[in-house]
Amino acid sequence: MVILSFVLLSDAEFIYRNRNGSVIVHNVETNDSTVLIENKIIVSIKAIRYEVSPDRQYGLFAYDIAPIYRHSYTAFYVLRKLPNGEPQNLYPPEVSNTKLQYAGWGPKGQQLIFIFENNIYYCAHVGKQAIRVVSTGKEKVIFNGLSDWLYEEEILKTHIAHWWSPDGTRLAYATINDSRVPTMEIPMFTGSLYPKVETYHYPKVGTENPSISLHVIGLNGPTHDLEMTPPDDARMREHYITMVKWATSTKVAVNWLNRAQNFSILTLCDATTGVCTKKHEDESTAWLHRQNEEPVFSKDGRKFFFVRAIPQGGRGEFYHIAMSSSQPNSSNDNLQTITSGDWDVTKILGYDEKQHKIYFLSTEELPRTRHLYNASTKGNFNRQCISCDLIQNCTYFSASFSHNMAYFILTCEGPRVPMVTVYNVSDKQKLFDLELNEKVQKTVAERQMPIRDYVDMKIHDYKLLIQVSKPAIFTENMHYPLLLVVDGTPGTQSVTDKFEVNWESVMVSSHGAIVMKFDGRGSGFQGTKLLHDIKRKLGLFEEKDQTEAVRKMLQNTFIDNSRVGVFGKDYGGYLSSYILLAGEENKEPLFQCGAALSPLTDFRLYASAFSERYLGLQGIDNKAYESTKLAHRVRSTKDQKFLIIHATADEKIHFQHTADLITHLIRAAANYSLQIYPDEGHYFNSPSLEQHLYKSMVNFFVECFIEQDKAPVVVTKEDEDED
Amino acid sequence: MVILSFVLLSDAEFIYRNRNGSVIVHNVETNDSTVLIENKIIVSIKAIRYEVSPDRQYGLFAYDIAPIYRHSYTAFYVLRKLPNGEPQNLYPPEVSNTKLQYAGWGPKGQQLIFIFENNIYYCAHVGKQAIRVVSTGKEKVIFNGLSDWLYEEEILKTHIAHWWSPDGTRLAYATINDSRVPTMEIPMFTGSLYPKVETYHYPKVGTENPSISLHVIGLNGPTHDLEMTPPDDARMREHYITMVKWATSTKVAVNWLNRAQNFSILTLCDATTGVCTKKHEDESTAWLHRQNEEPVFSKDGRKFFFVRAIPQGGRGEFYHIAMSSSQPNSSNDNLQTITSGDWDVTKILGYDEKQHKIYFLSTEELPRTRHLYNASTKGNFNRQCISCDLIQNCTYFSASFSHNMAYFILTCEGPRVPMVTVYNVSDKQKLFDLELNEKVQKTVAERQMPIRDYVDMKIHDYKLLIQVSKPAIFTENMHYPLLLVVDGTPGTQSVTDKFEVNWESVMVSSHGAIVMKFDGRGSGFQGTKLLHDIKRKLGLFEEKDQTEAVRKMLQNTFIDNSRVGVFGKDYGGYLSSYILLAGEENKEPLFQCGAALSPLTDFRLYASAFSERYLGLQGIDNKAYESTKLAHRVRSTKDQKFLIIHATADEKIHFQHTADLITHLIRAAANYSLQIYPDEGHYFNSPSLEQHLYKSMVNFFVECFIEQDKAPVVVTKEDEDED
Repeated sequence: MVILSFVLLSDAEFIYRNRNGSVIVHNVETNDSTVLIENKIIVSIKAIRYEVSPDRQYGLFAYDIAPIYRHSYTAFYVLRKLPNGEPQNLYPPEVSNTKLQYAGWGPKGQQLIFIFENNIYYCAHVGKQAIRVVSTGKEKVIFNGLSDWLYEEEILKTHIAHWWSPDGTRLAYATINDSRVPTMEIPMFTGSLYPKVETYHYPKVGTENPSISLHVIGLNGPTHDLEMTPPDDARMREHYITMVKWATSTKVAVNWLNRAQNFSILTLCDATTGVCTKKHEDESTAWLHRQNEEPVFSKDGRKFFFVRAIPQGGRGEFYHIAMSSSQPNSSNDNLQTITSGDWDVTKILGYDEKQHKIYFLSTEELPRTRHLYNASTKGNFNRQCISCDLIQNCTYFSASFSHNMAYFILTCEGPRVPMVTVYNVSDKQKLFDLELNEKVQKTVAERQMPIRDYVDMKIHDYKLLIQVSKPAIFTENMHYPLLLVVDGTPGTQSVTDKFEVNWESVMVSSHGAIVMKFDGRGSGFQGTKLLHDIKRKLGLFEEKDQTEAVRKMLQNTFIDNSRVGVFGKDYGGYLSSYILLAGEENKEPLFQCGAALSPLTDFRLYASAFSERYLGLQGIDNKAYESTKLAHRVRSTKDQKFLIIHATADEKIHFQHTADLITHLIRAAANYSLQIYPDEGHYFNSPSLEQHLYKSMVNFFVECFIEQDKAPVVVTKEDEDED
Repeated sequence: MVILSFVLLSDAEFIYRNRNGSVIVHNVETNDSTVLIENKIIVSIKAIRYEVSPDRQYGLFAYDIAPIYRHSYTAFYVLRKLPNGEPQNLYPPEVSNTKLQYAGWGPKGQQLIFIFENNIYYCAHVGKQAIRVVSTGKEKVIFNGLSDWLYEEEILKTHIAHWWSPDGTRLAYATINDSRVPTMEIPMFTGSLYPKVETYHYPKVGTENPSISLHVIGLNGPTHDLEMTPPDDARMREHYITMVKWATSTKVAVNWLNRAQNFSILTLCDATTGVCTKKHEDESTAWLHRQNEEPVFSKDGRKFFFVRAIPQGGRGEFYHIAMSSSQPNSSNDNLQTITSGDWDVTKILGYDEKQHKIYFLSTEELPRTRHLYNASTKGNFNRQCISCDLIQNCTYFSASFSHNMAYFILTCEGPRVPMVTVYNVSDKQKLFDLELNEKVQKTVAERQMPIRDYVDMKIHDYKLLIQVSKPAIFTENMHYPLLLVVDGTPGTQSVTDKFEVNWESVMVSSHGAIVMKFDGRGSGFQGTKLLHDIKRKLGLFEEKDQTEAVRKMLQNTFIDNSRVGVFGKDYGGYLSSYILLAGEENKEPLFQCGAALSPLTDFRLYASAFSERYLGLQGIDNKAYESTKLAHRVRSTKDQKFLIIHATADEKIHFQHTADLITHLIRAAANYSLQIYPDEGHYFNSPSLEQHLYKSMVNFFVECFIEQDKAPVVVTKEDEDED
């Protein structure tokens, strides 16, 4: 299935890539489509990414993309006058024939910047010589305008760490200095006579963190570099910058978070003076969640909307929209809460100033849903569901609004096959369907897709839901193996209404397994009490809740309790291992089969920003680190099959996690098998390896279930490839 | 079973460690025993190694031994006046509380040397200040008196690279310079927040080799350092020194081998001038074998005996004793061959000048035996077997002679339980038994030990033997699984009469498997034609011969051809993988189960001295390297189980061998499983890990045989631990 991406370019236009691969601009008002870039041009230069200049005169094409971390990559870039001008290479003035770390248009005309060796280059328009506007970069050490590994993976969650002012006259960029961060060395075994070692800065628990500062340069006239002053607060001595957003052309909002991640300050900084004014402060006895969401500003920047946790009774705090308005003649801002209730606003989408409406997504209907709502920003903040009952069998939406708030693109993400539609904001009338995914619909209709079902589960006053995927030909008289899939990264959610086809579906539809998911303590979108319960105790309550949910399922006679498996990856791999090893020795285990993909096994070895958030700063909470080490849970696993999979060049969760676990499994003479992917990284960049990985997991569970089976197993056919 | 080690100290005395752990000197003539070091002293300082000074006044004790490579280690050393003086630490004058790379007595009085940071220190007697006599050392780069990795593992086969002159006045030592040898980096995953990388110089095929020079220093008076001049021969531009042996107190024999290993020069060097005189030259169209065996000299050094390959007809050359005698008034030496026939002299043990007898071990009876012989060095060189029919059921001997050639210790190594006896040389009368291993005998008698059997095998005019180990309760009516064990390092032998109890015996006695071994092309002790056939084609003929031998075995109805396995480690792991992967796709495989322990998979990645010996120098024989890559043989292995085991910190056969193989297995979607030992080296230094390893292999084959079995498998009991 291909989900196209859509961008609302100007007020009535949006841009997308059509099925032929051409880039199209579509005017909603006139219903005209124009081809901006023909597919054959993209193909001819093997471009993987491309962008059209704001004035639509030029295309910027990236080819020969080499991934670095989750989002980042280097590539060669060429510019091309549209529709089919000669390609012009984009290189720094001093070097030719080199890859860049980034290149992209600014908001106006043909202005663009690119980043090379962590220095930023600005080009006012195509044909004009690029000038180096930031020169403090040092490769792999001092990053300008880009994230280091930590910021990319754990803080900003993007490799882009620069932000254009809306009028294109200024550029805010972060400088991330890793020079004091210890270096991680990753061996690359193959491809050369002597293995090579790849090194990069990676802060682990208690080690020096990258330092970050935010700068603004003016691009009209002489480039003046100004640092935005961090909050003068002792608690911010070590801090992260988690969010940057331009409010107006001269004011930039910045969110500062202390290293312990329980205190944050939202400031509005004057880009012309560097002076930052505190707009909001937040604190938590556990940890602050959702720190990199952007506020939405009014045009004059005097009013803004942001999401904050508001106490809602026994289940703790929920995330709601706060509206902050500057008072004309006062230094105090007025803070009002627009929404409330025991549900979360998941995203603020846009502010319609004329209509006094704020648009957002929320879980008001159910935690597993995302519906589009608006709320009045005046009076009693009346709110209205826009997507509810709009599309049949669709309860999980995302949306994107045009600049003038006249149109929005609504994406239905499930449970039905995803589809994309354009609507009028004013009357909520559908304008047209952009993508109906007919092909996928047809495939789904033909195949025996899993049936989703929900089972109530009471845990400590919480009414929670187990999500169960059953084979289409499910019958109560059969005995099915049960596979529990855990993710469980604190604050996330496994049970959602999103449409999904993956190897788990293959387990259900092709191998007659029942797959279950359950969000217990530590999960998000059900109040911060449930979320924060796991503080300093990662694994403990998650294991209890997950096994309780499994025991509940086992009360069903159609589940074969001799064939129960658990799977998880990353943090979920920590949990699946934890859960598998949780049984008592010499007692019939609850789980016969368990698999962990790139598991975390020792939080000390993982990224500072992640582990410290949940387990506390080292020195203060060493006990929490010691007690969560998976090694302590290792015991002989007779009668259980345990598969561990890890890529040896995993840059996110280092192979040492698995090495450490295995060392203890060997000492305990425990049963396990290991699969490694030599020299592969965390995000398997090759589809064929990903296929291999999924097949391995399917095979593992199918074989394990067959071995454990007292009755012949349901193996209807070989596992299939889906994507 | 404990085999004690014995040293014939002086003419009638030998030294050994008794069962209590005490060190005893025993006089053969008087039959008196004296305790030199009491066990409680050894225990009190936790000494692992200890040595008595030649004057028997002092003991030198090593404790806290940390292994480096196969033989080398560092340790703390203390001296102790015997029987129970106070311990005195042995440190270099400039450093205290440090481990040493080596410490050991010289041949006279209390003289000793030790090595620290690759520099040699000499101490004339205990209590006297040690002086640094060699200072050119550089840690891990320039080795004085010690081997680097390559010399230790592949050339000298010991970490000791210094040699005392017999009178103790001079010390010969090698300087091995690794500064131009590329560096290998081995990641150590566990035990620290950030994995550490261990680096050392390791020459791979075609890279710069270590350079070696031989020096002699006088120890009486001012130390004068003199380099022995290498042969002035263009072919020796790059050379190895493979053997050093003092002929007299002023003459030292040195064997020089060119890098291609097909040309060698044996010289006798004058330690006072450094001038070396060529005594013998050898050449081979394939490669020179057995280059580090020491010649045996007459007391005056004018006559010496060494082993060389002599053509013996259709099966090529065999190794026989050559006697070289200097002519009083001539520069030419007289060279005579003392032995001949289609069998090998395996070791020259001693020369009895008075009786004109040379003592040696040979395969004259059968390739798999080692008997002790003597031959007259005069007249028609009559020879006599001394060990033949001496001990019942014993055909594999080793021996050690006293300096005056009056006594010898004969060790029976199999097939019966090993035993050690002291004999008179003159009348071959037994003096007494030193070790009868009664405990092992008892255990063996009680257990159902495997029965050894031999099957004739004709391969290309060779009459060879397959060695077969059958369960004690073997019956022709049963169907047994078959396990082929391959080693196959060129020139070695798998089929011998040595007593052995190991995991293979467990496969036979506890799991009812039949284990077979076979020495085909590439093996030693059956003529150089068989040996040299594999040149530039490693794997090809070995696979053919081994599978032919297996097919021969499969003609027996008592072998179940659906349960056939193959195992090998190191080079044998290359072969076992080669053999397993040799079948044709879509054809019933000959082997259902295969395991490889630390396999070589690409000879380019292995030690220069090994790979170049058999595949030629790179640049000349690239094709040979390419065609022997295991990756080229990878194919889908459905219906076959393939286990690969590798320690990740293997310093001999790097983990990259397995990483490379696995990468190709993944691409081919082949069946395999992997077991790694994180941060362990090649020679598992912990007994518990070794146990784990053996259990894993036993489990793998037992489970594989069970799965493949059409009839219930014979599993009489759990695998047992033996050592």
